Amino acid sequence: MSEKRVYTFGNGKAEGKADMRNLLGGKGANLAEMNLIGVPVPPGFTITTDVCTEYYEKGKETVVKLLKAEVENSVKHVESLMNSTFGDPSNPLLVSVRSGARASMPGMMDTILNLGLNDTVVAGLVKKTGNERFAYDSYRRFVQMYGDVVLGMKPVNKEDIDPFEAIIQKVKAERGVKLDSDMTVEDLKQLVVLFKKAIKDQTGKDFPDDPMEQLWGAICAVFDSWMNERAILYRKMEGIPQEWGTAVTVQAMVFGNMGDSSATGVCFSRDAGTGENLFNGEYLINAQGEDVVAGIRTPQQITKEGSLRWAAQQNIDEETRANKFPSMEEAMPELYKQLYALQDKLEKHYHDMQDMEFTVQEGKLWFLQTRNGKRTGTAMVKIAMDLLHEGEIDEKTALMRCEPNKLDELLHPVFDKEALAQAHVLTRGLPASPGAASGQVVFFADDATKWHEDGRQVIMVRIETSPEDLAGMSAAEGILTARGGMTSHAAVVARGMGKCCVSGAGAIMIDYKTRTLEIDGTIIREGDYISLNGSTGEVYLGEVKTRPAEVTGDFAELMDLCKKYSKLVVRTNADTPHDAEVASNFGAVGIGLCRTEHMFFENEKIKAMREMILANSTEEREKALDKLLPYQKQDFYGILKCMDGMPVNIRLLDPPLHEFVPHDLKGQEVMAEEMGVSVHFIQSRVSALSESNPMLGLRGCRLGNTFPEITAMQTKAILGAAVLLKKEGYNPKPEIMVPLVGIVNELDIQESIIRKTANKLFKKEGVEVEFKVGTMIEIPRAALTADVIAQKAEYFSFGTNDLTQMTFGYSRDDIASFLPSYLEKKILDVDPFQVLDQKGVGQLIKMGVEKGRNTRKNLKCGICGEHGGEPSSVKFCHRVGLNYVSCSPFRVPIARLAAAQAAVEEMK
Amino acid sequence: MSEKRVYTFGNGKAEGKADMRNLLGGKGANLAEMNLIGVPVPPGFTITTDVCTEYYEKGKETVVKLLKAEVENSVKHVESLMNSTFGDPSNPLLVSVRSGARASMPGMMDTILNLGLNDTVVAGLVKKTGNERFAYDSYRRFVQMYGDVVLGMKPVNKEDIDPFEAIIQKVKAERGVKLDSDMTVEDLKQLVVLFKKAIKDQTGKDFPDDPMEQLWGAICAVFDSWMNERAILYRKMEGIPQEWGTAVTVQAMVFGNMGDSSATGVCFSRDAGTGENLFNGEYLINAQGEDVVAGIRTPQQITKEGSLRWAAQQNIDEETRANKFPSMEEAMPELYKQLYALQDKLEKHYHDMQDMEFTVQEGKLWFLQTRNGKRTGTAMVKIAMDLLHEGEIDEKTALMRCEPNKLDELLHPVFDKEALAQAHVLTRGLPASPGAASGQVVFFADDATKWHEDGRQVIMVRIETSPEDLAGMSAAEGILTARGGMTSHAAVVARGMGKCCVSGAGAIMIDYKTRTLEIDGTIIREGDYISLNGSTGEVYLGEVKTRPAEVTGDFAELMDLCKKYSKLVVRTNADTPHDAEVASNFGAVGIGLCRTEHMFFENEKIKAMREMILANSTEEREKALDKLLPYQKQDFYGILKCMDGMPVNIRLLDPPLHEFVPHDLKGQEVMAEEMGVSVHFIQSRVSALSESNPMLGLRGCRLGNTFPEITAMQTKAILGAAVLLKKEGYNPKPEIMVPLVGIVNELDIQESIIRKTANKLFKKEGVEVEFKVGTMIEIPRAALTADVIAQKAEYFSFGTNDLTQMTFGYSRDDIASFLPSYLEKKILDVDPFQVLDQKGVGQLIKMGVEKGRNTRKNLKCGICGEHGGEPSSVKFCHRVGLNYVSCSPFRVPIARLAAAQAAVEEMK
Repeated sequence: MSEKRVYTFGNGKAEGKADMRNLLGGKGANLAEMNLIGVPVPPGFTITTDVCTEYYEKGKETVVKLLKAEVENSVKHVESLMNSTFGDPSNPLLVSVRSGARASMPGMMDTILNLGLNDTVVAGLVKKTGNERFAYDSYRRFVQMYGDVVLGMKPVNKEDIDPFEAIIQKVKAERGVKLDSDMTVEDLKQLVVLFKKAIKDQTGKDFPDDPMEQLWGAICAVFDSWMNERAILYRKMEGIPQEWGTAVTVQAMVFGNMGDSSATGVCFSRDAGTGENLFNGEYLINAQGEDVVAGIRTPQQITKEGSLRWAAQQNIDEETRANKFPSMEEAMPELYKQLYALQDKLEKHYHDMQDMEFTVQEGKLWFLQTRNGKRTGTAMVKIAMDLLHEGEIDEKTALMRCEPNKLDELLHPVFDKEALAQAHVLTRGLPASPGAASGQVVFFADDATKWHEDGRQVIMVRIETSPEDLAGMSAAEGILTARGGMTSHAAVVARGMGKCCVSGAGAIMIDYKTRTLEIDGTIIREGDYISLNGSTGEVYLGEVKTRPAEVTGDFAELMDLCKKYSKLVVRTNADTPHDAEVASNFGAVGIGLCRTEHMFFENEKIKAMREMILANSTEEREKALDKLLPYQKQDFYGILKCMDGMPVNIRLLDPPLHEFVPHDLKGQEVMAEEMGVSVHFIQSRVSALSESNPMLGLRGCRLGNTFPEITAMQTKAILGAAVLLKKEGYNPKPEIMVPLVGIVNELDIQESIIRKTANKLFKKEGVEVEFKVGTMIEIPRAALTADVIAQKAEYFSFGTNDLTQMTFGYSRDDIASFLPSYLEKKILDVDPFQVLDQKGVGQLIKMGVEKGRNTRKNLKCGICGEHGGEPSSVKFCHRVGLNYVSCSPFRVPIARLAAAQAAVEEMK
Repeated sequence: MSEKRVYTFGNGKAEGKADMRNLLGGKGANLAEMNLIGVPVPPGFTITTDVCTEYYEKGKETVVKLLKAEVENSVKHVESLMNSTFGDPSNPLLVSVRSGARASMPGMMDTILNLGLNDTVVAGLVKKTGNERFAYDSYRRFVQMYGDVVLGMKPVNKEDIDPFEAIIQKVKAERGVKLDSDMTVEDLKQLVVLFKKAIKDQTGKDFPDDPMEQLWGAICAVFDSWMNERAILYRKMEGIPQEWGTAVTVQAMVFGNMGDSSATGVCFSRDAGTGENLFNGEYLINAQGEDVVAGIRTPQQITKEGSLRWAAQQNIDEETRANKFPSMEEAMPELYKQLYALQDKLEKHYHDMQDMEFTVQEGKLWFLQTRNGKRTGTAMVKIAMDLLHEGEIDEKTALMRCEPNKLDELLHPVFDKEALAQAHVLTRGLPASPGAASGQVVFFADDATKWHEDGRQVIMVRIETSPEDLAGMSAAEGILTARGGMTSHAAVVARGMGKCCVSGAGAIMIDYKTRTLEIDGTIIREGDYISLNGSTGEVYLGEVKTRPAEVTGDFAELMDLCKKYSKLVVRTNADTPHDAEVASNFGAVGIGLCRTEHMFFENEKIKAMREMILANSTEEREKALDKLLPYQKQDFYGILKCMDGMPVNIRLLDPPLHEFVPHDLKGQEVMAEEMGVSVHFIQSRVSALSESNPMLGLRGCRLGNTFPEITAMQTKAILGAAVLLKKEGYNPKPEIMVPLVGIVNELDIQESIIRKTANKLFKKEGVEVEFKVGTMIEIPRAALTADVIAQKAEYFSFGTNDLTQMTFGYSRDDIASFLPSYLEKKILDVDPFQVLDQKGVGQLIKMGVEKGRNTRKNLKCGICGEHGGEPSSVKFCHRVGLNYVSCSPFRVPIARLAAAQAAVEEMK
């Protein structure tokens, strides 16, 4: 650990810089860098992320002691640059105290503003600024925020509002006023008194008057907030390690609420929702930053263009707009010019879209922070492609700028145009995060989570969201808020999640107690369906039909770049022609896994399947299989035709037979009737098929080796379909995959049945079709003996679902009993069924590829299973030299991007 | 393949020799060798084992063509040495045709004697020998045997006797005679006619008259018999590969049935039952070899000493003995001297106990074969030690001479002396294979197998056994026959299996139809209990109590040799002081696996365990665990005390919790009553605990990591017991093993709970006990990441049961649905739960040891689980450098011997 714990900045100088992000956090590093490149930033200092780690290791007291001298010196440095003094009633310095981690975690940790005020200092501030209202408004805000964050004031019941808000409402009611701004200075003074009393009543603690005591409390509270529940949840979702810690930045306050020559705002160098190269943002005159972000007042647009667009969406006429909601470009043209120039400078400096906070204090513009802006998937792709075209970044950087998982947003359905034309628009809000969503209304995060777990699609509706709503937002299909702008909590978080969101729909009246919402007289209850269009801000009554997304424009261009750079190709897992087609449109170049068992569940098929299972002899079994043959052949015909000219890897029957028989009495009775046998007979057969550990029982090629006639039938169906297609002029490329091989002999016997059946069929039909016989490597022993297995297998497909099950000894069906505890205790970092375990399972894959290719030099190796569409796993597959990954159709572009990134990373 | 397919021998010359066993089979190689060292052997020739393989690859016709010239030339060679001609009525050559595999397979394959006879030749034989009776007796025997073996004559029903025997009985009944020898020449002639008619009637084929046609039929029949059912079963039991094939030896017949100057016999250079250095054997005057082996006539002893002993056992007075059953030593003293000298020469030549067949034809002694004799486990040990003392072999050879699995016989109970004194002796037979056995009487092999599978102990009782009875004998505790001597089929096979056997108990009358046996008026029905002493030949009514075996004498000496040579030590799997003591007596030097779950099933313990499972909070769980603590402590106290000064490796709770709750309604009702909760509550808890694949669910350290208080309680119990013992002056050496680790963090957390609990306990008690914390490597991922796991584990114990389950993806509970078919189809050579899979599972063990020791140089590694007592697996463990194996108490000496052999093999 470095001895230096605190880094100062201000007045065009700084001890830190941009590339010290790990030590100073994103915010601290950027504030330093902005100073260095000439952007006006209030002076301050940053306590490093290392100190956060120290804080959790050594405890609060020790760390405060270690920091004391450096912090006190840094405060003096800020005092001298601001020509004011901390705690000095005649010319007080006020500061903000903020978190700042290596990766952005918006709203997850705590922030304190206006720190340094007390009953004496506030009087001095009044004197100094001549603005009593401002001073007391700042003071009451500070007490409120400090009470919440440092002293732990919380609503007593979930449905209650914040205790300070309750006091404000009470005071306003007593005064008979509606707006906060209608309160008198006396009201504000009374609020401070009432707030302090409430704090003392609820927490038993006095509000600290000493500014240095306030500062230490705030610094520690920010460190504490690194481990609050929502921060932990956010890190888990975003994969941010706990060890990184947060920095704390203490910075001189500048005030956007010092009258009409002051303002505060947030702006983006490009559109975070669509990616368009349009400078945009929101501001409020005579306000503090929190007012913009928290969505308490509906903010105004920064550019005139944006303002006009906004007014149109809100059905506000031009006169009202120009008078009541003028853009900054109109209201503060000089400052707007400065702002525009500086945002451009920052984007060019960082070569990426910037998300900036600024304050105008009595005509002077200050930047409070800048960072690479969060954006939707659509914006991510457009910005990357635009910056590429503008020559700001090269192709590889453009590829690396896109987060594979975020492409998901571009792949999800949009509203069907016809359905949309007939849909009833209830109201309109801000298009806060694009996409289309339908679902049942819920009001509370807990319910959203629960309903989602029950398999329901929900739309979360809130007056405004707060970090406590995070889990609920994650579970919802979409989010609708009554208050808040494009940069409100709901909007920012929803964009981060790639969720559809409509914010600031002011016509909505929400009643949490009765769990209803009202829009222009229409009452919607919890559980009713609504639909949201996050790209237009429209809210519809009921469910609106959707249609699939398409790969066009920037997205198509990105996919072309992927093709140019990646070595690994992407196939899809598909059991139907429909799935195959979807995947093919997304760029899949074959089928990596076509499961055959799903094909047996329709009426006549399941009947024949059950006859096969009940058969007592090979002949009876063959008779039943003969009935299945035409169905199977038809299924394969459709898939092979749809994937004409591309390899289609078909897995022979895999699951245990008991999955095809009913386990409930009623189903057994129906089956008995259909089969013309007694229920008792069915039950005894079902019971004979039951196993202690079906995952480790009679399934996979153990079935084919016990009942070779199943393998023969499936071969006839696959190659029969291929022969038919070839006769019709198509070019089918079937691959027949033997599942669950652990011993080479298993494959050997299956292969000879397949070859023998094929030869007979080709002879009879007078046509030969080229095909391959391969195997899944999904049993640890298969990977360990891959050299021997490759003697018989023409290709390998790593079945990482089963391989993970057996390598860990985890049943996917039973892991729920300990996985949550394992994730919580950090025994596991991630669910190994989601993200490939590179250290264990990956070792077997590596071994399997190497040993396999020792025997058969050009052995084609692929992976099927959930991991084939997970970016970090795809990258691993690239590194161990697989030829392809296969994933579900909607993960294909994600896998393609990950594959390209893996190739680019390798070049470095 | 060599071009030479046939090797001749005779008159002191031979084309083969002893070390060509693989090519000529044991018998062929030894016949050649005997010629070369001057032992008189009838001339003949051997068709190689390679031809057998060729026979199954290319088919009968092709192989007969390939052999034709060589066989015809070899026949001429024999003709010239014997001065007689094949098929020449004036001076005919008769031959035997026998199988001979690389490893001895007594009675498993077919043999034809007297080949070359037909209606013309038999007349010539009469003329030449002047013995019409002999000639026609030989002829009818030949037709009978050829009919059985080559032409496939079999009894129609299981309970019928051989069709030829039926004809003989019919003829004897018509003539009113009892013994075969009472039949006239005319009767024998008629038998030939009737036999040939029966053959034509039953098979539709004529009996072949042409001697060369007879010869080819016989040669092919011997090759065919390599694949008969009993031969396949025997190979499976003995682990003989099918690919080895059998050789066929064609040899000039010599006749022991040419009157009273002729005889035939079988002899051993030492006692095959006890191992005593006593030449012994049986013979019959005027008989063919089959008469002795098949037990049709009760044979006489070769030595006088043996004869006297036999008579005493049979309650035969000296006069009767000397007149009716004289030994060969008395009846043919000159020939006996030759025989004695030659057997001695052979044993000294082969440095091992010999099993020899001989025939005296009209005063001339011929040896027909010699081989290393099968022997009981007791004899195996004694002979090896005796030969060592005699200087015939060295220590390493003595070790290698003992087959580890056969030690099993020396470990099994013998009758309790007191119980024996009170037992009622029913009768006495020959002490054919030593040991003690009690069980229920069964008469048929199928029943023996079935009853055994049902968990019953059975004694198989037969008039005489045949190879068809093999499976039944294997399932029985012991075998009792009414007929047959020490070298009868029953006796030889039982000794090979290490089963207790009493043969030739002549007083027994068996009625297969009523399924009863009668001894001196006592009727015993199927299902009644009897007991056998295979070391004395006594048969007792009812069950007789047994007591454990001891390691003394030769056995102890062998174990000392094991200690001298082996590097690997042997521990035991024991959950009770009793098991630990048994194992310790057998030389176990510690406990390799002490399972704790078995300790929870007694009354009060299971109740507390269930309270723990039903607990809704950590506190409730801790309360229940507090009740368990004293019980657990007591259990560990007993075991640690019994194994004082030796390491005791205790595994923390492993099985899924549902194993401790009742799954039937009645049990649930009882539990509800005991716990004072509703049945519904119990049921919902049981159902919550149920899993789809419990083997892959919440068990092992996943339990301890979900409920850390269990680990803490067990640690307190183990170390609490150890502290108590240390205070009492003992030297306890506990090792605490965390099961089912797949991720190092799992072990890390468990270890810290253990250490923390230990430190607290030691502080409180004021005494510290040294202990180790280790882990089982039983999850593939643990082996793959053993380098990381060794950072936390002080030792590894490979849990090969689970490791095999997960490496193969087999559930031990479900494997029965496909294992038989897998063994039959040769997909698996052996059950991998019995014999360690060295290629797959073994690779993980090797990797685990290497990686583990890369991290922790002297990491102690052991194995627990079934494989630790299986010789080939133990040898593997030696080769990969394990420090110890651990096995069930009764496998300890077997493992010790295997370990020593592995060390000796390595020196070579």
